[in-house]
Amino acid sequence: MKIKIISPIISDIFDEEVREDVKNYVSETTTVDVCHLDYGPASIESEYDMALCVPNFLEKAMEAEQEGYDGIISSCFADPGVKAAKEILSIPVVGPGEAAMLYGSLLGKSFSIVTVLPNVIATQENNSKALGVYEKVASIRSADIPVLEVSEKSKLKSALLREMIEAIEVDKAHALILGCTGMLGVAKDLQNELFTLYGYDVPVIDPLMSAVKLLESQISLGIKQSKLTYMKPPEKLRVFPQTVSTSI
Amino acid sequence: MKIKIISPIISDIFDEEVREDVKNYVSETTTVDVCHLDYGPASIESEYDMALCVPNFLEKAMEAEQEGYDGIISSCFADPGVKAAKEILSIPVVGPGEAAMLYGSLLGKSFSIVTVLPNVIATQENNSKALGVYEKVASIRSADIPVLEVSEKSKLKSALLREMIEAIEVDKAHALILGCTGMLGVAKDLQNELFTLYGYDVPVIDPLMSAVKLLESQISLGIKQSKLTYMKPPEKLRVFPQTVSTSI
Amino acid sequence: MKIKIISPIISDIFDEEVREDVKNYVSETTTVDVCHLDYGPASIESEYDMALCVPNFLEKAMEAEQEGYDGIISSCFADPGVKAAKEILSIPVVGPGEAAMLYGSLLGKSFSIVTVLPNVIATQENNSKALGVYEKVASIRSADIPVLEVSEKSKLKSALLREMIEAIEVDKAHALILGCTGMLGVAKDLQNELFTLYGYDVPVIDPLMSAVKLLESQISLGIKQSKLTYMKPPEKLRVFPQTVSTSI
Amino acid sequence: MKIKIISPIISDIFDEEVREDVKNYVSETTTVDVCHLDYGPASIESEYDMALCVPNFLEKAMEAEQEGYDGIISSCFADPGVKAAKEILSIPVVGPGEAAMLYGSLLGKSFSIVTVLPNVIATQENNSKALGVYEKVASIRSADIPVLEVSEKSKLKSALLREMIEAIEVDKAHALILGCTGMLGVAKDLQNELFTLYGYDVPVIDPLMSAVKLLESQISLGIKQSKLTYMKPPEKLRVFPQTVSTSI
Amino acid sequence: MKIKIISPIISDIFDEEVREDVKNYVSETTTVDVCHLDYGPASIESEYDMALCVPNFLEKAMEAEQEGYDGIISSCFADPGVKAAKEILSIPVVGPGEAAMLYGSLLGKSFSIVTVLPNVIATQENNSKALGVYEKVASIRSADIPVLEVSEKSKLKSALLREMIEAIEVDKAHALILGCTGMLGVAKDLQNELFTLYGYDVPVIDPLMSAVKLLESQISLGIKQSKLTYMKPPEKLRVFPQTVSTSI
Amino acid sequence: MKIKIISPIISDIFDEEVREDVKNYVSETTTVDVCHLDYGPASIESEYDMALCVPNFLEKAMEAEQEGYDGIISSCFADPGVKAAKEILSIPVVGPGEAAMLYGSLLGKSFSIVTVLPNVIATQENNSKALGVYEKVASIRSADIPVLEVSEKSKLKSALLREMIEAIEVDKAHALILGCTGMLGVAKDLQNELFTLYGYDVPVIDPLMSAVKLLESQISLGIKQSKLTYMKPPEKLRVFPQTVSTSI
Repeated sequence: MKIKIISPIISDIFDEEVREDVKNYVSETTTVDVCHLDYGPASIESEYDMALCVPNFLEKAMEAEQEGYDGIISSCFADPGVKAAKEILSIPVVGPGEAAMLYGSLLGKSFSIVTVLPNVIATQENNSKALGVYEKVASIRSADIPVLEVSEKSKLKSALLREMIEAIEVDKAHALILGCTGMLGVAKDLQNELFTLYGYDVPVIDPLMSAVKLLESQISLGIKQSKLTYMKPPEKLRVFPQTVSTSI
Repeated sequence: MKIKIISPIISDIFDEEVREDVKNYVSETTTVDVCHLDYGPASIESEYDMALCVPNFLEKAMEAEQEGYDGIISSCFADPGVKAAKEILSIPVVGPGEAAMLYGSLLGKSFSIVTVLPNVIATQENNSKALGVYEKVASIRSADIPVLEVSEKSKLKSALLREMIEAIEVDKAHALILGCTGMLGVAKDLQNELFTLYGYDVPVIDPLMSAVKLLESQISLGIKQSKLTYMKPPEKLRVFPQTVSTSI
Repeated sequence: MKIKIISPIISDIFDEEVREDVKNYVSETTTVDVCHLDYGPASIESEYDMALCVPNFLEKAMEAEQEGYDGIISSCFADPGVKAAKEILSIPVVGPGEAAMLYGSLLGKSFSIVTVLPNVIATQENNSKALGVYEKVASIRSADIPVLEVSEKSKLKSALLREMIEAIEVDKAHALILGCTGMLGVAKDLQNELFTLYGYDVPVIDPLMSAVKLLESQISLGIKQSKLTYMKPPEKLRVFPQTVSTSI
Repeated sequence: MKIKIISPIISDIFDEEVREDVKNYVSETTTVDVCHLDYGPASIESEYDMALCVPNFLEKAMEAEQEGYDGIISSCFADPGVKAAKEILSIPVVGPGEAAMLYGSLLGKSFSIVTVLPNVIATQENNSKALGVYEKVASIRSADIPVLEVSEKSKLKSALLREMIEAIEVDKAHALILGCTGMLGVAKDLQNELFTLYGYDVPVIDPLMSAVKLLESQISLGIKQSKLTYMKPPEKLRVFPQTVSTSI
Repeated sequence: MKIKIISPIISDIFDEEVREDVKNYVSETTTVDVCHLDYGPASIESEYDMALCVPNFLEKAMEAEQEGYDGIISSCFADPGVKAAKEILSIPVVGPGEAAMLYGSLLGKSFSIVTVLPNVIATQENNSKALGVYEKVASIRSADIPVLEVSEKSKLKSALLREMIEAIEVDKAHALILGCTGMLGVAKDLQNELFTLYGYDVPVIDPLMSAVKLLESQISLGIKQSKLTYMKPPEKLRVFPQTVSTSI
Repeated sequence: MKIKIISPIISDIFDEEVREDVKNYVSETTTVDVCHLDYGPASIESEYDMALCVPNFLEKAMEAEQEGYDGIISSCFADPGVKAAKEILSIPVVGPGEAAMLYGSLLGKSFSIVTVLPNVIATQENNSKALGVYEKVASIRSADIPVLEVSEKSKLKSALLREMIEAIEVDKAHALILGCTGMLGVAKDLQNELFTLYGYDVPVIDPLMSAVKLLESQISLGIKQSKLTYMKPPEKLRVFPQTVSTSI
């Protein structure tokens, strides 16, 4: 099967790392391709960024379906464009946030998300309500690290570890979720450190890899999003823009 | 005070009627201006349409703030762009869906929404969960009339009346909400007919006028959206597109 | 339009201040009159006080409707008598608690109420459940100041500010509600101080003024409480008492 | 132990039947006395009636405590005055609605209430929310019989049976609650008929007898309402009325 | 009436104390017998222990029904085997956990459970969800004392008192529940100490005695578990084991 | 990787079909073995059956871990023994019910389960509450076919199709779940028929295959159940029985 991961930002900073990391998790017969946007924000840290990234994400998603991909992932924990893509595509679409929250619901009586900045907490909370697992959310904490700085792994890991300990001890979280798909390649290390250093034998869930596995499994099972919830949009006039660079 | 209603679609079909109708509800000292989009969809009937309308809506919203408006409304029941606008603006922003659902929660022990097409039901349900009033929702029903046909008032009213009777008798709704801001000028008639013809003395809530009144009242009270929930987006590179017509 | 605010207590201590303060918020064409009870408690700080104030409040409310008022407010955050008045009157009735909680739900992902004494917390919590917005309540805190001492504004403000900071930092409140209608004229100051001194740009919601604005807007919109929820009471024998002073 | 059942209405129509019926359920060492009000409504069928009955109910409740009763019941399914009495008394107070709903929650995965008139449905629903068992409520149905006509047992039973069948078959109720304390002496017959005639082996719960048993058990266990939830009201001036007959 | 309390463990350590203590609570005409298991765990401190105790508990429960008992209690706060026994028996079955949580819901706006070990917290939380009172749970705390050490009353009481104070002050609990049926004869003392030493006038609920009283009251009222929820299991081949001692 | 599916019943009727069917879904490098119990019930259709199957299921699960399996599935929709196995094992354990409900939550705004007999509905509902997705459950319907008759595929499919249509049209289900792991090899056919014959493009979820895929993915991701929720049971004396045939 062929999966397309679309990074809904205008930079390729995560693309190569995603390509490498995902190989550790997918089945031998799964091909994963990764791309990013032509226009939109440099990273997703607000509803505003989500709004700006979705139109081009949806164009990329439609292209991917036409090119024969079997499923699509929007590589951002806030799942931007996922609901719209579930409407316009006939192949399965998965968001990393929804995937990770389902694993969190399965693995413990409660979970906490540790995300990048406080700006995205309300959005993630609303997503958990739409998904139906809000009751399982112990807390959503911020590591106070912007998306574009998560590649400093050592700083990232120590900030995440600090918040994870608080999530367990103060918020009573029993499972932990990385709240940004840019937090690549650190879940296993954090899981090990929580256990060996602190005695907490709890899962640390990587959202992008969770989405990849849930997408693979949907394709294997022959199931996709319900077209009663995600109905095909009616045909009508829709005026699209073209890209040109400006910044604010 | 000066209020700007932005119709998040590319046509002016509702603009004049909104301008006229709103005069019946606002205070003498309130000025209301109405505009529509340069690019985006012809109407909002899906998450896909919402995604396409938001970027230009946000541009219009930012312009309106710079021009000195005291508050902004996104004139669509699905509240597209409202959360993002609450982040990027310093003036109050209100969505008709959230406004109408709050009146519904206040006025009865339960409410039903009667909307245009089944495509938008899941979105409206998610919005009620984010707003916190999902427990009050008796049902969300569709009148099976596309947005661009709601101007046929007689057909619209008879379809709405039929669904409202079902909402009361089958779903146990105690208040009723029009689920599209294009359903202009019919709330009072429907409220009267439900009472005089069927004996149901229940409120029928017009979402756009509800939003206007809640926005006026926020401005009077000197309150706006919390900047802890709707934090100012971090500065970063954001690449914007320009408009050109194409249709699908 | 003509609005009657009924203070459900036997003293006039708040009447004049309400008359003055409300002028800052209502439309030019709105007349607001204020009255208090002939018998009942000196203030409302328990279910017991609520029970004692309601009979005379309802008499005053019926009188007001007969005198041609367009809407009624019960001026206490616990909304005493509001449900009964919604039954027996044909004009809109609003409670300050329900009004403020709806603004709180609209403006942030969560809100806290800071009220007078711990005695009323359970009542306010139950009211949030009946209204349907309990999920939005971050906390209900007490400033530990009896109703009859809230007129010492400086002491009041410093106690409220202290609890509001705790509500934001400990309870994760994103909007704040004054939990007593006697806390007049302090909402704006507290909102300013939270922002300028602590950097928290959050709304501070005055419950009585919120009720006035929601009542005005209901009258403008031509909507009132659903008579399916608040049905007209059946006719029957009801024996009423007359007043005479005694104290316990 | 000595229990006082206060019928919060101005007539004695139920008193003798209560005295007789309760003997079938209480322990040999329990004495039960019954009284009714001096002023208030002829029956409770609205929030308005509740408001009118509570002041005299509270006077009777305080008297009963002074006379040495060990516990108090407000004999109406809507539990009027129960929260206030829990505040002002040091002995346990139980409402029939709360008692019956707890048995309903214990005995099946869901329960329905069949009450007198639709006027009281919203109140009972709010009470289930305050009690915390709203999720268990399958439905609240009305038999459309006023309180003062429930003594026509044959008519009452056939109306209740009809609604109970609907509650089971349509609303998926697994336990049934009589929604009026005047529905005396019919629970066992209805339980038998549901089983022998329809094959439904489900409990039919009598609210007043449930309250009596829960009160007896509280007294035996030495527990009563929490004084953190039902705090003693602060001392203050409270002006009381005296009774004189008038009707509306 | 005759009640059988089955201690779902292989030791008699609690039997005599239960026999004595229960006499303080039951009606004069109630006989209570106590027994324990032939095979199963030494105590219940995990889902694993629950799984091991249930088969023999169900055998004992069926025997008791055949011997003419009027009702059965599974003497463990986790209510092991209670749902299965409700299916296979025609007499009422009550679990101490469900009984105590209902009293907790009745007596205060929230309750906390203080249990033996953290191992059982998730189970108790799930039980509160199935019972429908999860919203009332302020917290479930562990006293960190294994079941087999709860007979050291002085150590037990001081650990419970410490956690109860935390439950009230930190978790905002308004009623308290002992989370193990082995915590015999300490509820009243703890209730007294909380009041006299700390000023907290809150109920402390003994789960086993609560179950006894709720069972007695069900038998008096002539009601039992709904056979729509707890349907009689279909007949089929079921292969049973015999007992032999081994330990792990 | 090596997965062990334990059928928690005493017959091998499903074993071969499971072995064959699962090959269509797992990765090439995954080995799946299937076994059944030595003692317990012939099928699981009650809490009583669940109680009887769990002890031997847990023995088989412990054996499987010792034999080097990487994960375990309890092949029954009610997930018997899953929580206990999650405690005593160090490898991941998944239940088909929890797996299917998570896919249902992901794929649509609501889902219905169509199960074998009404006896298991309450159990499945409680499981959805413990998992945290109860809000997503549109309904749980019974096809009224005992487990041991589900192998008559044609009769099974027509009964399932009938209930699925009702689930969609009456209960507003947007995704469908087969509520018994014995309903093998029919999900895809039903999904196709719902679409081609009725126009409903909705997922039909096979619970056992869902569990297999979620288990595979957990093993790939290196995550398992949280040991804070599913703590290792304390060591103690546990007396086990041996098997001998008897039937009731």
